Amino acid sequence: MPVYRLEVSYDGTGFHGFARQPEVRTVQGEIEAALNRVLKLSVESTGAGRTDTGVHAVGQVVSFVAVEELDLVRLQRSLNGILHPEMVVTSLTSEEPGFDARFSAVWREYRYQILNGPHADPLRRTFTWHVSDSLDLDAMNEAAEQLIGEHDFASFCRAPASGGSVRRVLEARWTADRPLVVLRVRANAFCHQMVRSMVGFMVEVGRGRRRAEETAAVIAAADRSAAGPMAPPQGLILWEVGYGD
Amino acid sequence: MPVYRLEVSYDGTGFHGFARQPEVRTVQGEIEAALNRVLKLSVESTGAGRTDTGVHAVGQVVSFVAVEELDLVRLQRSLNGILHPEMVVTSLTSEEPGFDARFSAVWREYRYQILNGPHADPLRRTFTWHVSDSLDLDAMNEAAEQLIGEHDFASFCRAPASGGSVRRVLEARWTADRPLVVLRVRANAFCHQMVRSMVGFMVEVGRGRRRAEETAAVIAAADRSAAGPMAPPQGLILWEVGYGD
Repeated sequence: MPVYRLEVSYDGTGFHGFARQPEVRTVQGEIEAALNRVLKLSVESTGAGRTDTGVHAVGQVVSFVAVEELDLVRLQRSLNGILHPEMVVTSLTSEEPGFDARFSAVWREYRYQILNGPHADPLRRTFTWHVSDSLDLDAMNEAAEQLIGEHDFASFCRAPASGGSVRRVLEARWTADRPLVVLRVRANAFCHQMVRSMVGFMVEVGRGRRRAEETAAVIAAADRSAAGPMAPPQGLILWEVGYGD
Repeated sequence: MPVYRLEVSYDGTGFHGFARQPEVRTVQGEIEAALNRVLKLSVESTGAGRTDTGVHAVGQVVSFVAVEELDLVRLQRSLNGILHPEMVVTSLTSEEPGFDARFSAVWREYRYQILNGPHADPLRRTFTWHVSDSLDLDAMNEAAEQLIGEHDFASFCRAPASGGSVRRVLEARWTADRPLVVLRVRANAFCHQMVRSMVGFMVEVGRGRRRAEETAAVIAAADRSAAGPMAPPQGLILWEVGYGD
């Protein structure tokens, strides 16, 4: 049976996260409702990343299996006609049998956006975290470098996933285009709240309240309280998902 | 009596424009309510630009007269504590007697932001106009250049203002940081819906549906229907206001 892959961009502000849940408005729920309405079939989808309430996506990937070949140009147009402007299907392609948005993914990239200046910015308030304290980016990048590699990230995971909390971070780097300060972080996979916990810790380092040299000890503690406060959801964006292709 | 000047940044999405009106939520109404609450006095303010429903500001200027000297650091902090996150007071200073945000202004600068690409961007949908047709920026800049200077802009004014529709455009230039395409336009003053009408016309030129050479004739027509369709409000931002200082 043919397998299809959607790339989806969304503003997570008005959603109770990505994952389908009864009674509440979720990204996956809206996508499946739109697919069901167009295809007149009950479709179950899989997403590459289960973003939390208030978290956004530029390149979320969703896959589903159909019972027949679909006219993709027409389907994409129909979906974008039905979906609210908070969500856009930016690409729709067919995949090899066995493709699964979640299990076929080899890496995920998130970005975390901080607005670092004296005043909040009303136009960017829904997709940045406003931090008015000055931030030492060099220190934050020293901490980021120590997060790279394969580690047990239990200190940065809300609850240990069934598969444990070992993850391989491939890239983690802060760059600045003032007043915007952005973390780009790529890993084979992320445990729940991992990016926001890492950002919360690194911002404490940037403020001078903690030292970058503590990073290895925080990881080694394997204790959630070691990482400190978590960054808020609205700065987080699921940016891109990589597959073997 | 001391005169004060506020610089205000806001997301216009949830407001019925800037100007105070009974029964509806406006930017000026919220600022005055906040001032009245903090100062325990009924304050009347003046704004440099009367932005329409859905139009934003980065540097709106508002002035008011107080009966006594105010503690500005404390007042700014109190106002930002009361105002919703859609609005921020970025500066509060005292001015010479006679200063008036509207009548003392010597120029206003607006920006108009177009997201020019195949897909809408959910995160930027509230402060850009999504245009999927490809746009010829050189042609748009040819038209923009002809708008510069002192002209009767009746073709670009919703209704002739009491003072007529002659305005002096000091700068008008499109630049691109793809997919973002931005007009920066500065004039001594603007009549109602002038920027959105100019953008509507120039986008028709960019699409190739009209020619830049028509610009002088459109101005000369002094007829609103000559300029064609108007651009939507959400791409428009009151960027900065200039005073003699």
